[in-house]
Amino acid sequence: MDTALSYAEANADRFVGELKELLRIPSVSTDSAYAAEVQRAATWLTDHFDAIGMAHTELIETDGHPLVYAEHITDPAKPTVVVYGHYDVQPPDPLDEWDTDPFEPTQRGDRLYARGACDDKGQMFMQVKAAEAYLSAEGELPVNLKYVLEGEEETGSVEMEKYVQQDGDRLEGDVVLISDTAMFSEDTPSITYGLRGLAYAEITLRGPNRDLHSGNYGGAVDNPCNALSRVIAGLHDADHRIAIPGFYDDVRDLTDEERDTYAALPFDENAWMAPLDIDDVRTESGYSTFECLTARPTLDVNGLWGGYTGEGAKTVLPSTAHAKLSMRLVPEQDVDDVYNKLEAHLKSEVPDTMTLTVRRLHGGDPVLVDPSIPAMQSARHAMGEVRGTEPVFVRNGGTIPVVADFQQHLGMDSVLMGFGLDADAIHSPNESFGLDRFHEGIQAIIRFHDHYAARAASS
Amino acid sequence: MDTALSYAEANADRFVGELKELLRIPSVSTDSAYAAEVQRAATWLTDHFDAIGMAHTELIETDGHPLVYAEHITDPAKPTVVVYGHYDVQPPDPLDEWDTDPFEPTQRGDRLYARGACDDKGQMFMQVKAAEAYLSAEGELPVNLKYVLEGEEETGSVEMEKYVQQDGDRLEGDVVLISDTAMFSEDTPSITYGLRGLAYAEITLRGPNRDLHSGNYGGAVDNPCNALSRVIAGLHDADHRIAIPGFYDDVRDLTDEERDTYAALPFDENAWMAPLDIDDVRTESGYSTFECLTARPTLDVNGLWGGYTGEGAKTVLPSTAHAKLSMRLVPEQDVDDVYNKLEAHLKSEVPDTMTLTVRRLHGGDPVLVDPSIPAMQSARHAMGEVRGTEPVFVRNGGTIPVVADFQQHLGMDSVLMGFGLDADAIHSPNESFGLDRFHEGIQAIIRFHDHYAARAASS
Repeated sequence: MDTALSYAEANADRFVGELKELLRIPSVSTDSAYAAEVQRAATWLTDHFDAIGMAHTELIETDGHPLVYAEHITDPAKPTVVVYGHYDVQPPDPLDEWDTDPFEPTQRGDRLYARGACDDKGQMFMQVKAAEAYLSAEGELPVNLKYVLEGEEETGSVEMEKYVQQDGDRLEGDVVLISDTAMFSEDTPSITYGLRGLAYAEITLRGPNRDLHSGNYGGAVDNPCNALSRVIAGLHDADHRIAIPGFYDDVRDLTDEERDTYAALPFDENAWMAPLDIDDVRTESGYSTFECLTARPTLDVNGLWGGYTGEGAKTVLPSTAHAKLSMRLVPEQDVDDVYNKLEAHLKSEVPDTMTLTVRRLHGGDPVLVDPSIPAMQSARHAMGEVRGTEPVFVRNGGTIPVVADFQQHLGMDSVLMGFGLDADAIHSPNESFGLDRFHEGIQAIIRFHDHYAARAASS
Repeated sequence: MDTALSYAEANADRFVGELKELLRIPSVSTDSAYAAEVQRAATWLTDHFDAIGMAHTELIETDGHPLVYAEHITDPAKPTVVVYGHYDVQPPDPLDEWDTDPFEPTQRGDRLYARGACDDKGQMFMQVKAAEAYLSAEGELPVNLKYVLEGEEETGSVEMEKYVQQDGDRLEGDVVLISDTAMFSEDTPSITYGLRGLAYAEITLRGPNRDLHSGNYGGAVDNPCNALSRVIAGLHDADHRIAIPGFYDDVRDLTDEERDTYAALPFDENAWMAPLDIDDVRTESGYSTFECLTARPTLDVNGLWGGYTGEGAKTVLPSTAHAKLSMRLVPEQDVDDVYNKLEAHLKSEVPDTMTLTVRRLHGGDPVLVDPSIPAMQSARHAMGEVRGTEPVFVRNGGTIPVVADFQQHLGMDSVLMGFGLDADAIHSPNESFGLDRFHEGIQAIIRFHDHYAARAASS
């Protein structure tokens, strides 16, 4: 391991140069104008895996953007680590808020600015460079490695999920390792042991069969926008809890140990609110802000529209009103069960004057990984060695649906060892990644493989 | 009067031919691409007023489309009737729902199909033809006539209102006569003696300073779309009354006589709901549907938007949420007072997590005209003679802001003697006007002038 660590240190600048090459490819998955660039990023990566000496590399075609697959089986008796990541990026809009070209990586101080610098090209590339360090410096890996990198994470991972569910056999292994999350803070490194799930629905209320004149019909024809507002307002109670009957039935509450850990976190609510320009929160009664952000379920309207939304005044009584709304789920909630409860509640709340349509747009189950399993302990050890501080285990409020798929379809837990920070501004203008964390990440991954292999050998 | 009536009958076909000429001019006021056509319609009308022998005609330029002015002062001792109407039309969209070209008037059965056939070119032109009948057949008018026709009624009457408020002296007269409303039904002719007012506002709630990721921030950052829904839901109570404190303070309730009149109207609620595909209404507790439609105040959301409204799922926790909402007011409510009460209520209801902005977009005071005044009785007499049925006096739920301006700034009541029917589909595809009503309207207006002049002479 030590020669691999030294190799990574010695080649740090070249690694950054290669990352810049990858960042120059505008692999924006959501915009079909960039389809060729997404393909180019995938090809760049397979070529790169070949170059660093992975035994087998392959572009797996899908109905969308391809999966990049690479494997190196050192010894079937050794544990197999499956690395998941993604090579697509968010659109760079709004372009005029970038200080430098989002696809011309620019170093300022110790930060590298580019779309994808952190999410996820930078973090994913740490995983690639850790393998190179072993292969080049030591001629072998301490574990078997399989990489699967997708090009549609920013658009819902549809093909990736399908692959895991239908053709995932070749992804079998002992654990999944992912660097696509953020740490609690610069001073408090962390490993993610839980993700929230997601149930995202679009609802439509239809009243009259056409838009009406509000002067001629207002006062008697029920208004879908007003009705939708009443329905949405009724989705929460006065304690800011979700008012859908049975919604909390399967919620696994935080354990005393978890609550103690959370309480000990140096979460500074004012410092957290300041960059958002807010001075108060609205949290579920009985839980702290950070608990609500990561370990309690939510219901948010993500989009709302109906009637006339242009300039000026138009006196329309609209025919329809629409909302996109999503619930973040926590273990042991089940996506389909929650969808069913939402629909039943909506049906009971929507007035007779309206017809209701509910479309289920996008779901993902919540995930919880036991921090005591060997791979999690290896991650804690590796990160602690590199950062000089033992990382804490925290949950993350976001959703990575494929993590639940790995668990449900292949029986594999995921270790979410990410090195991002809020300050990296992923999905926003001037995304960046601290190069100190890029190099630390490589060191930590090298240490993870070593520690995980050693534990497996001794068990 | 009798020769004027005969003249109108004898020239009925030519009148329709001339109306078709006017309808062929696509004077869509809201779309600047049609600006030259709006101007052409104005010029066509001044030429036409010259041709029928009006003593003075004039195009009054404004900061928007011009006002068409025409006057014929028969004798300063006679009463002066000011005729208001408009020569602009709604856009014809959606074009593909028209059976024939909206700007190529087409007669099918006894109906003339074209944009503006009823609203308001057809109805306004009845007023012009009534003057021609007198001037051509009798060489003189029984009253003094002043016409003021605007080209911006469909876009808010801004210039017309400004003119009445600032330069309205030359519009002084005894009464305003307007044909721009509908009758209760084919079998129940009616004259409108009340209009609702309007207070139209746009409200914005702002939470965090930018759109956030709902996974990272959901559960603690209050969501402007959810908050706006709560605020809107709170604008009505369980009795479907408006929950703004003091909102009803100045509402003049229906008199017993009015309620008796309303109760006697052959209002068939099921027949009224059928074309809207609704099977229930939502009305203020204690009032009938037709009372709520015309004589009780309302609050309707006209537009609602926030967050992501495109295709698919985007997990955004929006920074802002917006609503356009308008209240229809009834006598003696005052626009500014109602705006103030709305704002005060919103300020008290919007949570601390949000900042509120309220923009006042468009207002108009409610109007009530005493049905017993001479001009109203002349209208009742004239319409009764022509239709063979005494018309009823009813209120209309819509708003014509300039009517309140005539009352407040020039002290003139308006007689709203309209010949439209719901079936004319104004503002909709396949707008039409029944030619029987076009000709009856001309006859009724001829009779109105005669009766009104005679009553003035005898008083």
